[in-house]
Amino acid sequence: MSERLVVIGGDAAGMSAASQARRRRPADDLRIVAFERGQHASYSACGIPYLVAGDVGDVDDLIARRPEEFRERQQIDLRLGSEVLAIDTDRREVVVRDAAREYHEPFDQLVIATGGTPARPEVPGAVLAGIHGVQTLDDGIRILGYLDRHAPRRAVVVGGGYIGLEMAEAMLRHGLDVTLVDAAEQPMRTLDPDMGALVALALEREGVGLRLGERLTGFAGRAGRVTAVHTTAGEIPADIVILGLGTRPNSGLAAAAGIDVGPTGGIRVDRRMRTSVAGIWAAGDCVETLHLVSQRPVAVALGTHANKQGRAIGINIGRGYATFPGVVGTAVSKVCSHEVARTGLTTAEAEAAGFSTYSVVTESTTRAGYFPGARTIKTKIIAERTTGRFLGGQIVGQEGAAKRIDALAVALWHGMTVEEMTALDLSYAPPFAPVWDPILIAARKAAEKLTDDR
Amino acid sequence: MSERLVVIGGDAAGMSAASQARRRRPADDLRIVAFERGQHASYSACGIPYLVAGDVGDVDDLIARRPEEFRERQQIDLRLGSEVLAIDTDRREVVVRDAAREYHEPFDQLVIATGGTPARPEVPGAVLAGIHGVQTLDDGIRILGYLDRHAPRRAVVVGGGYIGLEMAEAMLRHGLDVTLVDAAEQPMRTLDPDMGALVALALEREGVGLRLGERLTGFAGRAGRVTAVHTTAGEIPADIVILGLGTRPNSGLAAAAGIDVGPTGGIRVDRRMRTSVAGIWAAGDCVETLHLVSQRPVAVALGTHANKQGRAIGINIGRGYATFPGVVGTAVSKVCSHEVARTGLTTAEAEAAGFSTYSVVTESTTRAGYFPGARTIKTKIIAERTTGRFLGGQIVGQEGAAKRIDALAVALWHGMTVEEMTALDLSYAPPFAPVWDPILIAARKAAEKLTDDR
Repeated sequence: MSERLVVIGGDAAGMSAASQARRRRPADDLRIVAFERGQHASYSACGIPYLVAGDVGDVDDLIARRPEEFRERQQIDLRLGSEVLAIDTDRREVVVRDAAREYHEPFDQLVIATGGTPARPEVPGAVLAGIHGVQTLDDGIRILGYLDRHAPRRAVVVGGGYIGLEMAEAMLRHGLDVTLVDAAEQPMRTLDPDMGALVALALEREGVGLRLGERLTGFAGRAGRVTAVHTTAGEIPADIVILGLGTRPNSGLAAAAGIDVGPTGGIRVDRRMRTSVAGIWAAGDCVETLHLVSQRPVAVALGTHANKQGRAIGINIGRGYATFPGVVGTAVSKVCSHEVARTGLTTAEAEAAGFSTYSVVTESTTRAGYFPGARTIKTKIIAERTTGRFLGGQIVGQEGAAKRIDALAVALWHGMTVEEMTALDLSYAPPFAPVWDPILIAARKAAEKLTDDR
Repeated sequence: MSERLVVIGGDAAGMSAASQARRRRPADDLRIVAFERGQHASYSACGIPYLVAGDVGDVDDLIARRPEEFRERQQIDLRLGSEVLAIDTDRREVVVRDAAREYHEPFDQLVIATGGTPARPEVPGAVLAGIHGVQTLDDGIRILGYLDRHAPRRAVVVGGGYIGLEMAEAMLRHGLDVTLVDAAEQPMRTLDPDMGALVALALEREGVGLRLGERLTGFAGRAGRVTAVHTTAGEIPADIVILGLGTRPNSGLAAAAGIDVGPTGGIRVDRRMRTSVAGIWAAGDCVETLHLVSQRPVAVALGTHANKQGRAIGINIGRGYATFPGVVGTAVSKVCSHEVARTGLTTAEAEAAGFSTYSVVTESTTRAGYFPGARTIKTKIIAERTTGRFLGGQIVGQEGAAKRIDALAVALWHGMTVEEMTALDLSYAPPFAPVWDPILIAARKAAEKLTDDR
């Protein structure tokens, strides 16, 4: 008798799991039904700011695979506009509502891939028109429509994280006056403040007005449309507002079904992505995962993790063996002509995790100094006192800077010390690096500082 | 009483050692004399093709530090135009010849950094004018002078390695007709032939004529100047010839002094860069080093290794502790609009080292497929059968492709398996990578192939 797999959530994590399971088990062995609340499945949410900016010309470009492809080529019964209201772990079924009806769908295996819930500020005026989140493809389409219809002149972006900065750039590209509001003293809280300050400087140079250290207190409007943002420091006129306040794991459905949720609010899973209930798996922005440096659970909303986790589930359901061992906290972003990347723990995160840290910041160039197109790159290395264990790296620079974070991410994966890192055999040629790669310079400086301190 | 340090060779390895030793020991504790045969010290030899191409406008740009800087700021007695003729390990002195005289210079510590000797073909006509090696800064200056004076139309580059390809591009940039001759079936012998074929294709598209599988047999000339290159397949007209036949370690001086030379022809050193004679160190293109994957000695002529090795010596002479553990064979090059990189062992090298291998080649893009500027990148992964141990990686692509080799180099450093590599937390954002980085795609394909074969 064939098994029944139900997937909740038709995006990266859910559809990766479904596809991978299908590759390993034919339709007569595994029946797959996937429920997606929205009208789009399997799209690149990370691409939305670039759609708004105009880098990506067509909504369809962000759609990795069309629903028909899943249905016809993979015999995955993908049902759009179908919201799962409840999971019954005893009866092994989910309750589904679509435009027409409410019904029960039984499962043997269940994949929960319900994604994240964007943080919405609970302040007066938050329901005014012109205030936009940036989570779904529909959000992106709505923003483009609003720009088109209302030709706003002044944009306020609330939240200086990755999405906030990418959206600030997108608004600049539409010729708007852009102001960025963040409660912290520097944008990009995933960096140390000194590296965040470099990002702030870059934003100012691009013409973004910064209102840092200001907390959002509300919105003002006229005729139902936003006209101003209120912060602890005053009023900022706004014809359009973009919210980039981050997301939290959308784990309510799982929690209501008695599935364990961890301290981050994400669904608890083991290395194979199994939840606390047998036969129920979870992946993507709704789960928490192990941070391999702090050894603590973290909830990281990133498409790349969602894909890997979904794939691991698909292999496991497909009678293979696959794990997702955790993350080291790697992230990268482009902000106008600047590139920003980080991996591991910030100084504050490391100290909170019980490490005693020190750090170095070095400045170098992306190519040999004499080579055309050489750009400035600043690299920060955070390491453990006494042992010199590498704990985190941060990069702010221009073209060619950010992808260097990957070498640091692999070094971190292996618990290298900064001294060991100075010997790494990284590639060198004048168009690609100075004879000492910026990463090696930073590691060397960190190793020297450790020796000096001894 | 102060110690006397003598350095033979005033380039990357030698001057790194001298500078680092000086940082740790003042002039009254350590007297440093450095002998350089040529008229330039501490320059970027890797930059010469870019000087010839015109990317680097001024010879001085390639000079990292001027002789006066060493003399005045660091009290390093750098003597240009001074050739060391012999090392007497018993009397602890070297025999030096300069324009004026021949003399003996005593040492307590000696650093041998004599570099590499370019392979010169022993064929008829090799002494004709217009045939140029590309090793020293003077070679670069001579080539520019020859281009200027004789306005050659047709260039033949002999040797399809890194230098050969970079010089082919440089000749194209001067508007010459360029033909590349290589005895192998594909250029870039440091790649597997299938990846080398991609480089060949790129070269042809750029307008380079390829004469592959042809061995150089001689040169023809008129009035002392080269007019043609002869190969096993015929004659190629040439107004200028560039030799890119690689180098071998210049270890003759060391060998004559009874210092151990290894099977590669490079001076044998331990992890701290000590030769077989106490108090005598060696670094740079004249030494052999351990390949950490094959566990065999290799001689790799690369400025980045020379710098690291020299620095390690300087720290050790400076009463610190430093090692150069070896290399994993990382290299990168730009050929017109293409980028080429490799790390680890090729299939042939791995088989020769006793591994039973398999490989995969994947094609992907440098950015999310929908993001402007996404370019093709082909990645090859070579792994060990049965265990899936990662043995080597090769990348051929366009802008943004090559530096990805660094993440593979660090993975190799740690002996990862391809399965382990699929989980690596590499950075993702649409301007920098598809949701699965090309490296992860290749690792995944390699892991899947391993499973399929079991």
